[in-house]
Amino acid sequence: MAPAAVSAESSGTTTPTTKSASALTQAGIKHMRAGSSTQAPLDASLMTTELTKSPRAVPEPESPEVLAQKTCTDHMVTAKWTVESGWEAPELKPYGAFSIMPTASVLHYATECFEGLKLYRGNDRKLRLFRVSRNCERMRKSAARIALPDFDPRELEKLIKALCARDGAKWLPKDRPGFLYLRPTMIATDAALGVQRPKEALLYIILACFPDMSKSLGAPAPPALNGTVNGDGHAKPASSGLKLLASNEDSVRAWPGGFGFAKVGANYGPSLVAQGEARARGFDQVLWLFGSECYVTEAGASNFFVVWRNKETGRLELVTAPLEERIILEGVTRASVLQLAKQRLAKSIEGIEAVDVVEKRFVMDDIISAYKDGRLVEAFAAGTAFFIAPVGHIHFRGKEIQVPTEEGESGVYTRVIKQWLMDIMYGPEEHEWGVVVDEVA
Amino acid sequence: MAPAAVSAESSGTTTPTTKSASALTQAGIKHMRAGSSTQAPLDASLMTTELTKSPRAVPEPESPEVLAQKTCTDHMVTAKWTVESGWEAPELKPYGAFSIMPTASVLHYATECFEGLKLYRGNDRKLRLFRVSRNCERMRKSAARIALPDFDPRELEKLIKALCARDGAKWLPKDRPGFLYLRPTMIATDAALGVQRPKEALLYIILACFPDMSKSLGAPAPPALNGTVNGDGHAKPASSGLKLLASNEDSVRAWPGGFGFAKVGANYGPSLVAQGEARARGFDQVLWLFGSECYVTEAGASNFFVVWRNKETGRLELVTAPLEERIILEGVTRASVLQLAKQRLAKSIEGIEAVDVVEKRFVMDDIISAYKDGRLVEAFAAGTAFFIAPVGHIHFRGKEIQVPTEEGESGVYTRVIKQWLMDIMYGPEEHEWGVVVDEVA
Repeated sequence: MAPAAVSAESSGTTTPTTKSASALTQAGIKHMRAGSSTQAPLDASLMTTELTKSPRAVPEPESPEVLAQKTCTDHMVTAKWTVESGWEAPELKPYGAFSIMPTASVLHYATECFEGLKLYRGNDRKLRLFRVSRNCERMRKSAARIALPDFDPRELEKLIKALCARDGAKWLPKDRPGFLYLRPTMIATDAALGVQRPKEALLYIILACFPDMSKSLGAPAPPALNGTVNGDGHAKPASSGLKLLASNEDSVRAWPGGFGFAKVGANYGPSLVAQGEARARGFDQVLWLFGSECYVTEAGASNFFVVWRNKETGRLELVTAPLEERIILEGVTRASVLQLAKQRLAKSIEGIEAVDVVEKRFVMDDIISAYKDGRLVEAFAAGTAFFIAPVGHIHFRGKEIQVPTEEGESGVYTRVIKQWLMDIMYGPEEHEWGVVVDEVA
Repeated sequence: MAPAAVSAESSGTTTPTTKSASALTQAGIKHMRAGSSTQAPLDASLMTTELTKSPRAVPEPESPEVLAQKTCTDHMVTAKWTVESGWEAPELKPYGAFSIMPTASVLHYATECFEGLKLYRGNDRKLRLFRVSRNCERMRKSAARIALPDFDPRELEKLIKALCARDGAKWLPKDRPGFLYLRPTMIATDAALGVQRPKEALLYIILACFPDMSKSLGAPAPPALNGTVNGDGHAKPASSGLKLLASNEDSVRAWPGGFGFAKVGANYGPSLVAQGEARARGFDQVLWLFGSECYVTEAGASNFFVVWRNKETGRLELVTAPLEERIILEGVTRASVLQLAKQRLAKSIEGIEAVDVVEKRFVMDDIISAYKDGRLVEAFAAGTAFFIAPVGHIHFRGKEIQVPTEEGESGVYTRVIKQWLMDIMYGPEEHEWGVVVDEVA
């Protein structure tokens, strides 16, 4: 495939679209500016395969090995890139340690980006990915923001599927619905110590075993992860909803003109001190606020949703922060929640009142006001790691907000949206978002 | 040494001071909260030594090997840390690649920090470090900001000196004044994929060969580095001063409540796209502005100074951005420039007019106004990599500012301050900032 055919922008759809002349020209210019006319594109069809000679045992669910979050499957996919030659042939090979020079760019300048998604073993025994094309398109945007090389997201998707096909059958036994956590990652391996755009990079994809928190949350299948893992790295039972500690003014996650929208390492490491302090004080996650107005942005590394009754209209609203300022992550779960709610909650169903779906800026005072008026209905965090996690409590600078969880563990909207998503991820619902993966043997 | 004796804050002096009772208590509490009473402190006296069996040839100055910025000396120092046991015995050992797991925290969450300083071979054949204790104290602050483990900065200083002592004699020949670039680094090696405070880390110190740009700058000895390295990684001759491109509103380096003050990877990777665009347009570096007022903060990865005549007082001022908001790096060179100028330029000397030394917020309009009025005298970037680099040109959103360089390559204040610093770094001036390193054989 010629480099100019690499899609120049995310189409936002799940199928590749024909690029406009303008986009083609931009891609061409970008390609020329990269200083080479012989850069090979990422090409999944060139992938070589070397199977492990030391296959490992699959750990039991909830075993210490799984709780430690360090176990990956037998194989990984890697692809090297250099500014001179572009992408080398991808390799599917045994999972194991990398060799990296102490001067490597990624170890000094955070030239790294990643994606997080899950591979599901459905109740119908099928293997599925959820809207994987969106993750691949977002990874391309993240790579561009952190000066890492471009690639065709459809090729990344093929590589992800190849790894899932290879290891899925063994690591997600057909008789046991569950999931593995997929982590496509790109790092700058360039060993030149100067502060500059990296000239060498490594794309890799790994599949990790993660704990299933569904039982402790009382929900029907596999949900929350990082948000319900203790400071010591061990899973803990969730009580009635997440407890969030609102951030202080001296701790700001992202800023307009920064990189809060991108899944780059630089958004995560700097948040760990505040996260650690929150956990030491008995909270699950930080609720990240922005500005002196206290705009509500994200909960931990998830998007944040609130359901309240609008004071003026008297109608119920499902509200989340907008994307325009680019300070929050454009979550795949976020987009899916918004789309499902618009499609399925525009009218009342099964005795559940209709909601208006709104992306807008809102502040802590709005939540407090709704709480005091009895208009606060529920709240939840949404992301791949947390999945859909009900929020039960928010601490905001001396004020305590008890968020209603009408059904005990969860509010009704949190429950139905989560169930709709799970039906797509695990079956039985056949939906274009649930991408079935063919398995090797 | 007991952990409680680890200094709890930077004293700002070059010698360790006795800690206050309050600081000791804070360190004790912090230690207890780390969850272990048996964490070993970093202890340079435990360092083991394994010398290389494959010593390499020292590359010639200006050789392709040096220009590539990938060559380090024969040895490095490493020290492992775990949350269970604290710091293991440091090792001085042959330089070489690390083995790191694909799930390592540093590759995903930018849990990394570093320092940059130089080891100088003086005109008097002595080996010196410049204010190394400041770098060690700053590294401790950076580590705290990015959730990496604490250590006594005096122990880090001892490890740095041990590496310099071991490799200095060979890699900085006594008959050739010059420098090596020192890069103390800390990375989270924790292989658990969850977003959490890392439980394993690696501290390492490497010594790299870097190009000497002094001839092309026409200055008397070794100065600028990264700022005068092309996008292709090769050194290029500097013309009359750096050309700076002021950042646009959609590109913000750091913000209040963020981490701009810390030397963490998360400040560097996200700046590379803007830096690459600036270089593609023929500029050397980005002049980072902040806010709609366009406050002037940093130039590339250096601090920025301007000399102008105050409109009201008629007196000359040396001005740089203040540290209070914590959005700029607390540069060692910055602090040294301020101290020297206060000490030596308070009164006119050798026909050079006195300057007032001012740390305050200033905006692009202040520079433009001074330029239009003929009050702009000179400007320079100051940092370890750039050293003291005269600025010749600033492009600010369609406006061109030709910064005077009175003496051709540089202004007079830039020149005298640079010379004062070089006299301390390379001799002949004996000064407490120039720390002589004893060499092994």
